[in-house]
Amino acid sequence: MSELRFDPIRCRWAIVATERRFRPHEFVRPQPEPPGDLGACPFEPGNEHTTPPEIFVIPGGARQPNGANWKVRVVPNKFPALRVEGELGREGVGLFDRVNGIGAHEVIVETPHHNRTWADMSAEEIAMVLRAWRERLLDLQRDIRIRYVFIFKNHGREAGASLFHPHSQLIATPIIPTVLLAELNAARKHWANKERCIFCDLIHQEQALGERIALETRRFVLLEPFASSFPFETWVLPRTHQHDFGACSDDLLLELGGVLRDFLRRVRALLDDPPFNLILHTAPSPHPRPGHGDYWETIKMDYHWHIEFVPRITHIAGFEWGTGLAINPTPPEEAARFLREVAQAET
Amino acid sequence: MSELRFDPIRCRWAIVATERRFRPHEFVRPQPEPPGDLGACPFEPGNEHTTPPEIFVIPGGARQPNGANWKVRVVPNKFPALRVEGELGREGVGLFDRVNGIGAHEVIVETPHHNRTWADMSAEEIAMVLRAWRERLLDLQRDIRIRYVFIFKNHGREAGASLFHPHSQLIATPIIPTVLLAELNAARKHWANKERCIFCDLIHQEQALGERIALETRRFVLLEPFASSFPFETWVLPRTHQHDFGACSDDLLLELGGVLRDFLRRVRALLDDPPFNLILHTAPSPHPRPGHGDYWETIKMDYHWHIEFVPRITHIAGFEWGTGLAINPTPPEEAARFLREVAQAET
Repeated sequence: MSELRFDPIRCRWAIVATERRFRPHEFVRPQPEPPGDLGACPFEPGNEHTTPPEIFVIPGGARQPNGANWKVRVVPNKFPALRVEGELGREGVGLFDRVNGIGAHEVIVETPHHNRTWADMSAEEIAMVLRAWRERLLDLQRDIRIRYVFIFKNHGREAGASLFHPHSQLIATPIIPTVLLAELNAARKHWANKERCIFCDLIHQEQALGERIALETRRFVLLEPFASSFPFETWVLPRTHQHDFGACSDDLLLELGGVLRDFLRRVRALLDDPPFNLILHTAPSPHPRPGHGDYWETIKMDYHWHIEFVPRITHIAGFEWGTGLAINPTPPEEAARFLREVAQAET
Repeated sequence: MSELRFDPIRCRWAIVATERRFRPHEFVRPQPEPPGDLGACPFEPGNEHTTPPEIFVIPGGARQPNGANWKVRVVPNKFPALRVEGELGREGVGLFDRVNGIGAHEVIVETPHHNRTWADMSAEEIAMVLRAWRERLLDLQRDIRIRYVFIFKNHGREAGASLFHPHSQLIATPIIPTVLLAELNAARKHWANKERCIFCDLIHQEQALGERIALETRRFVLLEPFASSFPFETWVLPRTHQHDFGACSDDLLLELGGVLRDFLRRVRALLDDPPFNLILHTAPSPHPRPGHGDYWETIKMDYHWHIEFVPRITHIAGFEWGTGLAINPTPPEEAARFLREVAQAET
């Protein structure tokens, strides 16, 4: 099992195993299975029995539960960092705080096709993955014990993917992690001062300047953040104010699927199919809590969901992790220009 | 050139290049030069002319400036993230803040021996490196423009080292980065409530429990933090209260050299010479500043210098970076036990 532990000095949580998982010599640096190794892949159609039973599925037609003939399939992680079963316990131990490992850890198998990346998929196929994200988010937000649901995708070994077959992951936590809390607090403070959404202000400022806008569609804008930590770091934001990814319509997700496909094809052409991470940032679970006043009402106005994209073409070294201060060798203005100008022929 | 940019949403700084450094296709994933390639190594004795002129040196005997016959040699980074020249400028731009790239970026060449790691060096040799750290820290703290001096070491490619020859780096910044600021604020708050140093409290609590203590010497304690983000993450702390690494005596640094040597030999035996990062955390530069009251007096009581060690045997994936919440598969209690029990014969 695992528990969430809070560091009172660095003011951040970690999910820490409480039983030995590895002996030291077992820390061999993992290699993903080779792309062609379909027989051993637990996400391949026909291998459904090798995963825990499915939680959600978008079927391809008539099918048996846990059979083949699916388009998107969600299963619990076989080695979950957090589990749904049990009662939430919060405990202080001297200087420390711990919470038992209640939450969820799921895998979204994005396609039955082993070698298909998002850049290869159609807008409709990516939209199906995004609909699975939305349905799992909405379902887990009903659980009163869960404070936050993170959905993210690691593409490539250097980005942390241990299996090749296209998949994303979901981790639901009984705490709000530091980075998101800082973001929520900054948005809250901006609203308190100005009665405007800081993300809406950012979009308007960047649209007026233009130089850091990578792409725009009718309802989405993709921009390179002013203080980008990494080359080609990109935020994908809905142009109008929306705090909750769970409220996106199928139609909006189809447009988002199209813009992500277009963007990832440009990235593939420019950066030679780099490893990357995508993380969805949306509002926390909307349960009223004592002492929070009208927090869950005002968040509708002060927060703005978005997706953060980070290509892993530079290392996250000790300096970056230990300080939170990254050294980015590529101006975001340049990255945006390259993304705008990459010839359609190259994608 | 570069500048420091503040992200008003994520509340963190980044050092961002303002001129193009790379075209996208130049982001080939870098390989360090092979261990044996001495001719091309800029840190090899005899190749001193290939680095910028030296800033500090511990000589091996009679020598010419920038000649051979040195034991430790400090030079400016050839591709500095920040530079000493120029006047500090702070500017607001709409939602954003920027500071021009004033600071310092130096390389500490730790030994003339290309293939010698800290685990191979003697306590005296490591202590010489630590003395170079101290002298550069003290020198840069005299610069009124500089708020913080970070000294760190990346060992191995996965940890961010692009050159094989043993070296550490120094980055001095005109701002205090987020992670350190959170730590300073937590220490300050603990002092304000209790008039005790939070690190001293931590050491006493861990000594009473014992289970997360990896090593102890007369004046140092090495412990696995309760909320370790990574397997075998370790903090090296002086047992008695000291806020400033710059005030360490030669004698104390010799003991520190010995304990680091012992620790890194254990790590090498347990984890097969893993890539790792070491980061020194010490008090900010002690310049009185308007509006800070007696901050620089109280920091002597509330902060406690230490070294953070992180082996890079698991990936820092998008989830970790994007949330600040790491998933650690090894209980720190287990890691401490392995470090205590590794047979001397194995090191």
